[in-house]
Amino acid sequence: MTAQSAEALTHRLDRYRAVRGQSEYLCEPLEIEDFGLQSMDDASPIKWHLAHTTWFFETFVLKPYMHGYKAFRAEYEYLFNSYYNGVGQPFPRPHRGDLSRPTVAEVFAYRAAIDEAVLALIVAARDNSDWLMRIELGLHHEQQHQELMLTDLKHHFAQNPLYPVYRATDLVDDRELGPMGYLSVDGGIVAVGATSGFCFDNELPRHEALLHPFQMADRLVTNGEFLEFIRDGGYRLPNLWLSDGWAIVQQEQWQHPRYWRKQDSEWFEFRLSGQRPLQMSAPVVHLSAHEAFAYAAWAGARLPTEFEWEKVASNAEPLAAPDNCFVESESYHPNGVDSSAEDQGCRELFGQVWQWTSSSYAAYPGYKTMPGTLGEYNGKFMSSQLVLRGGSIATPREHLRVSYRNFFYPPDRWQFSGLRLAKDV
Amino acid sequence: MTAQSAEALTHRLDRYRAVRGQSEYLCEPLEIEDFGLQSMDDASPIKWHLAHTTWFFETFVLKPYMHGYKAFRAEYEYLFNSYYNGVGQPFPRPHRGDLSRPTVAEVFAYRAAIDEAVLALIVAARDNSDWLMRIELGLHHEQQHQELMLTDLKHHFAQNPLYPVYRATDLVDDRELGPMGYLSVDGGIVAVGATSGFCFDNELPRHEALLHPFQMADRLVTNGEFLEFIRDGGYRLPNLWLSDGWAIVQQEQWQHPRYWRKQDSEWFEFRLSGQRPLQMSAPVVHLSAHEAFAYAAWAGARLPTEFEWEKVASNAEPLAAPDNCFVESESYHPNGVDSSAEDQGCRELFGQVWQWTSSSYAAYPGYKTMPGTLGEYNGKFMSSQLVLRGGSIATPREHLRVSYRNFFYPPDRWQFSGLRLAKDV
Amino acid sequence: MTAQSAEALTHRLDRYRAVRGQSEYLCEPLEIEDFGLQSMDDASPIKWHLAHTTWFFETFVLKPYMHGYKAFRAEYEYLFNSYYNGVGQPFPRPHRGDLSRPTVAEVFAYRAAIDEAVLALIVAARDNSDWLMRIELGLHHEQQHQELMLTDLKHHFAQNPLYPVYRATDLVDDRELGPMGYLSVDGGIVAVGATSGFCFDNELPRHEALLHPFQMADRLVTNGEFLEFIRDGGYRLPNLWLSDGWAIVQQEQWQHPRYWRKQDSEWFEFRLSGQRPLQMSAPVVHLSAHEAFAYAAWAGARLPTEFEWEKVASNAEPLAAPDNCFVESESYHPNGVDSSAEDQGCRELFGQVWQWTSSSYAAYPGYKTMPGTLGEYNGKFMSSQLVLRGGSIATPREHLRVSYRNFFYPPDRWQFSGLRLAKDV
Amino acid sequence: MTAQSAEALTHRLDRYRAVRGQSEYLCEPLEIEDFGLQSMDDASPIKWHLAHTTWFFETFVLKPYMHGYKAFRAEYEYLFNSYYNGVGQPFPRPHRGDLSRPTVAEVFAYRAAIDEAVLALIVAARDNSDWLMRIELGLHHEQQHQELMLTDLKHHFAQNPLYPVYRATDLVDDRELGPMGYLSVDGGIVAVGATSGFCFDNELPRHEALLHPFQMADRLVTNGEFLEFIRDGGYRLPNLWLSDGWAIVQQEQWQHPRYWRKQDSEWFEFRLSGQRPLQMSAPVVHLSAHEAFAYAAWAGARLPTEFEWEKVASNAEPLAAPDNCFVESESYHPNGVDSSAEDQGCRELFGQVWQWTSSSYAAYPGYKTMPGTLGEYNGKFMSSQLVLRGGSIATPREHLRVSYRNFFYPPDRWQFSGLRLAKDV
Repeated sequence: MTAQSAEALTHRLDRYRAVRGQSEYLCEPLEIEDFGLQSMDDASPIKWHLAHTTWFFETFVLKPYMHGYKAFRAEYEYLFNSYYNGVGQPFPRPHRGDLSRPTVAEVFAYRAAIDEAVLALIVAARDNSDWLMRIELGLHHEQQHQELMLTDLKHHFAQNPLYPVYRATDLVDDRELGPMGYLSVDGGIVAVGATSGFCFDNELPRHEALLHPFQMADRLVTNGEFLEFIRDGGYRLPNLWLSDGWAIVQQEQWQHPRYWRKQDSEWFEFRLSGQRPLQMSAPVVHLSAHEAFAYAAWAGARLPTEFEWEKVASNAEPLAAPDNCFVESESYHPNGVDSSAEDQGCRELFGQVWQWTSSSYAAYPGYKTMPGTLGEYNGKFMSSQLVLRGGSIATPREHLRVSYRNFFYPPDRWQFSGLRLAKDV
Repeated sequence: MTAQSAEALTHRLDRYRAVRGQSEYLCEPLEIEDFGLQSMDDASPIKWHLAHTTWFFETFVLKPYMHGYKAFRAEYEYLFNSYYNGVGQPFPRPHRGDLSRPTVAEVFAYRAAIDEAVLALIVAARDNSDWLMRIELGLHHEQQHQELMLTDLKHHFAQNPLYPVYRATDLVDDRELGPMGYLSVDGGIVAVGATSGFCFDNELPRHEALLHPFQMADRLVTNGEFLEFIRDGGYRLPNLWLSDGWAIVQQEQWQHPRYWRKQDSEWFEFRLSGQRPLQMSAPVVHLSAHEAFAYAAWAGARLPTEFEWEKVASNAEPLAAPDNCFVESESYHPNGVDSSAEDQGCRELFGQVWQWTSSSYAAYPGYKTMPGTLGEYNGKFMSSQLVLRGGSIATPREHLRVSYRNFFYPPDRWQFSGLRLAKDV
Repeated sequence: MTAQSAEALTHRLDRYRAVRGQSEYLCEPLEIEDFGLQSMDDASPIKWHLAHTTWFFETFVLKPYMHGYKAFRAEYEYLFNSYYNGVGQPFPRPHRGDLSRPTVAEVFAYRAAIDEAVLALIVAARDNSDWLMRIELGLHHEQQHQELMLTDLKHHFAQNPLYPVYRATDLVDDRELGPMGYLSVDGGIVAVGATSGFCFDNELPRHEALLHPFQMADRLVTNGEFLEFIRDGGYRLPNLWLSDGWAIVQQEQWQHPRYWRKQDSEWFEFRLSGQRPLQMSAPVVHLSAHEAFAYAAWAGARLPTEFEWEKVASNAEPLAAPDNCFVESESYHPNGVDSSAEDQGCRELFGQVWQWTSSSYAAYPGYKTMPGTLGEYNGKFMSSQLVLRGGSIATPREHLRVSYRNFFYPPDRWQFSGLRLAKDV
Repeated sequence: MTAQSAEALTHRLDRYRAVRGQSEYLCEPLEIEDFGLQSMDDASPIKWHLAHTTWFFETFVLKPYMHGYKAFRAEYEYLFNSYYNGVGQPFPRPHRGDLSRPTVAEVFAYRAAIDEAVLALIVAARDNSDWLMRIELGLHHEQQHQELMLTDLKHHFAQNPLYPVYRATDLVDDRELGPMGYLSVDGGIVAVGATSGFCFDNELPRHEALLHPFQMADRLVTNGEFLEFIRDGGYRLPNLWLSDGWAIVQQEQWQHPRYWRKQDSEWFEFRLSGQRPLQMSAPVVHLSAHEAFAYAAWAGARLPTEFEWEKVASNAEPLAAPDNCFVESESYHPNGVDSSAEDQGCRELFGQVWQWTSSSYAAYPGYKTMPGTLGEYNGKFMSSQLVLRGGSIATPREHLRVSYRNFFYPPDRWQFSGLRLAKDV
């Protein structure tokens, strides 16, 4: 056990403040009224995200590790627990939007109080203090919620016929875009999963997997291409859909991606910058996996598996991707990458839109959950969900990794989820 | 057509300002976050009430009668329409809580703009200008919504484990209360319905009805009395309940009135002043009609019909009732009237709690709806609802009349609804 | 207590055998497979009706009055209880169709065994034996279920694209039918409710009611007339509908009466004799109260109250009505009565179709339920239902009375329910 | 194209008659009333199975291949289509139980007519006639439905408090059973998928997969072992369950496997032979995947993957399994295999109970659906389901293969589904 260097301490304090500050920065354009909206069970109020991420530090760092710590407010343990049954029965998720108190100001005060205590604990740490790892986990957790804040807010705003604007941005010009090409990849045994540095437990253990030869599209599918699918009857042809997907199409009367709207024969798209004309060269986004499967079937292709994607992406990295791909660009909508962009084989691997894979979200061979209540973080969701890879325009760049696995249910489409095609050889 | 006198004008301006001002006064204790809550389909956001009552004046007064009037904001016609199909398809009620915009400040600005225009129209009126009647209707409409603001807010706050306080009030001492007595009333033909002055169309025409001899309880049923019903197994004995009521009891697992709560063998009640000990001498409140029917069956009595009630109340009037019975008392919870209070036969006829009757809400013989879209105000709800009489602690005193008919579905219990017994002779 | 005469005994035995035999006669056209169908919660299997009516005699006659009686089969007490909580928790109604056992043959054996015991009890009775009254009640109860057997079966068969035929009948020719006339009736105090002879408790006590002058249509509304309503946009105009009714129209996409169907611009109607061309002169049938209200609003009329109907019908009687009006005609579909038929003022008062009234199903002044569990027969349903009067083509003629009150919920339309108009003077 | 030999013809005729006859043999113990039951959307009426399997031959064999074939009855194309959208919109599955017609006798007549035509087509075939492959597919299809007939019937009967008996069987004695052992298996590349002979498209293409070293339990989990899990609080401890599973446990109030029942502290199990005492040494059956996952977590183990299972089973074969494992034993309930049974490493691989695997039901690399409408057979269900392996006591022995993949949703538990454990090394 060694004391941390001044440099390490400064880095830790800065990083904590930066990540926590980003959550609050994302709230700057909001009115007080916006913080409480819950437009569906899955989409929590912004205020809840701010409080829950704080609860995470209080519950998993301060309570176990800070000597003599007293709960900020006893009821918060219940109110802001998401799904950790080990902590206790959580307040029912569909009713998060029914709580006007604590107010937004009270939640910010909660954040400030917890931040002060956590920063003190960082100062008091040694290099291998147990809580440093948990603080790091808490920061990655907070980044996940930063993305959810944007996707949930978008869902909330989309209910409002006034089309509220989160942040006004200019429409970028249509980009240069050639026809879709395919990269051929050999089969064989590959190593997959996390290497070094921080990762979630679901990326471990790194292990070998066997790939069969395949082809991977060199870019994402665009709005223009998806519109051809629609015009060709895509949403009316049951043979293109999985059985579960077709059932939803009929029940929910799906006729286009989540935020598209046709008005007087013109197509529009709801963005965080408001209602905008649909831009044909931009990557299609807010697809369910079922829409992705149907499009792929129509296009004579398929979705990649998560390991095919990881193999292709193993030559790339988020840091090398263009600046307009992540949340830091403040565009809040995927505009895609020019085909003139230099890359090895595949563009748009990181950022832009999460790419649905055909892989069910499952444990890697030898997978172990974290001990204790934190073991509920990932493993218990390994049922009926699919893996998405690559991150999106709403993801912090540094939150991503080649081995990063996101996961949602096949019908979910309020995330920035899109589609890259693959093919058998 | 005669010009209005200065006195009449002053009265009209004052009255308009007073009623409209009261809606805003009721909002003073609220945080911005409270205005947007919608905790069930039936209970609208406070912000919506503020906007809808304003929409009423804009739609039914300004648009038809103010020359050259331009809509404040075109989308509001859709957003704040409650149920007037003649105006257009309304925004779906269950989603009123999904709208963070317009903001509270914008809604207050909407109110101010409409008020300015309506006041100008009042100034320009002659004594029999058509719009004066509609303004009067709009003010009564606003008073109805003032009561709903309190009952809806109470429902919203009741979802929150923090038990928010609307306005803190002291618990009053238990009151002097003798045993329940019964007033005997002869049968015969009586005249019922509105006489002169403002009334809603559902109180007309005044007409004759035949009563059979009956007895009317001289006061309301209390919490203490209702608790005996519970302790005697009231919620577990199907034979006390109507079939529809028993189905709800089982499905919703009802075990006590809406806002009661038992904690460590003590009974508490959620009030607009927060969680408070249950006060045994206070009138029981927040009953569904089904609970009222079951209690009456248990007590060997029955509910009065609306005309029995009206006959008894025809000797009384809201203006003569004690001060602690109406919303102006700012107690926001019924505390009941001392048995020492001077009265002729029956106490607590007006204010305190709405009294369920056994009368279905139906048209009086020869009933005519108002012409045009305003005809949707009352008549179309004459199906499967029951009449309640007398007003409550949340009703403005001057809004009430002997002939006033309120109506809700038998399972509804978020209103300040309680119970007076009657008997056959 | 006097012994019954031979004649009284013979009459009682004959009547018992005749009513019970009629239930079985109605089953003659059925296949074994038809007996088990339950196409909605409200429509029970035929087999269940056969068993439940038998259970009624076993439970309310044999068990209390037959010395040493042993239950036919213990589980039947639970399986065939409809809604008598005093007997015990009934088997859940929506699952009656899930029971293939007891088989049809076993149910007929159950009927035979109970009949033998009841007949023995009749033989042993004295004139005023308590059980004779209960047997009489059981026979009226059985007649009610005979009508339900036909309406439930019709609902079951209507689900089947093969359009099964219950009993083939010839289409009768269109009848002579003049324009609808109105009979003017004075107001005043009238006596309503049952006089002498058997009646249900809900028809008592006979009492005085006050009528206001009114007009009553001299015949039922026809299919042809209802079609005009449809063509005039009746199902698309919210202003014609009660609010609850309009909600159903939109939710269930109602566009015509329950069993109508439009095929290649021709209208058909599903009858117990199969799919048939819609006959314009026949009374419209299988309307909900909401459709009846909407039609009346469109026609500038209203529904009669139950006492207006009873006043008009007090000059008539079921025995004097034409033969083609009741179940004994074996037409199983209302064909209406010629305008040449001799009558005093109003035709089609009895039989043909149940006539919706605007009166909510409520207790008469001084109403008392039967003592004990049989008190659950009628009174507990006095909530949110409307009274229908007059009987239908599926009712046994001798089951009807001027004071007879049927009752269903406003949205119900699988009964033979239709419409007679009334007007204010 | 060569004419078929007399021997081949005889074999084909015999096999067709045998498989088709087995469906009818399974119906022998049934009453007419049993054929129409549909106790949940997923569990079809027996009559429907008899008709649908016949429809399969009519639609996919007779209509395309028999010259001049006329549909047996036009409406059957719609009524008995299960889910082939390419044939047309199917009759809605939840309403299959609403059809009393065609009668059971009519369905048997349908079967006889189609059989006659198919047999004629077999006689007319050459060795490589296209339709022979489709007939073979139809027979395997029919065998799948034979298993569903038993599981659906069991679900239907389980609703009935009379506990109907399908076929009475003796309870076998508790078997000899040692403690559970584990077989250690090396990792490496293995070939999986179908080899030669008939298989479904989802078993192809045979391909290589990479296994990591693992351990496989040498027998199934028993009722006695599962009861320990229950007694240890298994159904009350959220940390043992996947998140989706815990949600169901709470919503459906699961407390034990599907057909268990506790009465006066004794455990019983509903079998096709009626309500029987729970036999502790028998394999636990009628588990959802969620219950299997939770048990495995509690036992410190996991479910095998489908390829781990296939690797272990590749040394075995259904033909070598004991006689009491399949439907031909007519025991209709898994009794397990003695530990004295000779086997290589693992017992109870085939028959007894379907073994849940952790593998999601997905396409093999290079998977292709059958061309045309038959392509809807398997592929469109590759979403949110898990693979089960090995067959059950309700499966025909010759229907099984090492590569056979069954699939159900994780919450499903009306199949004969049970559990074998595995472990990481």
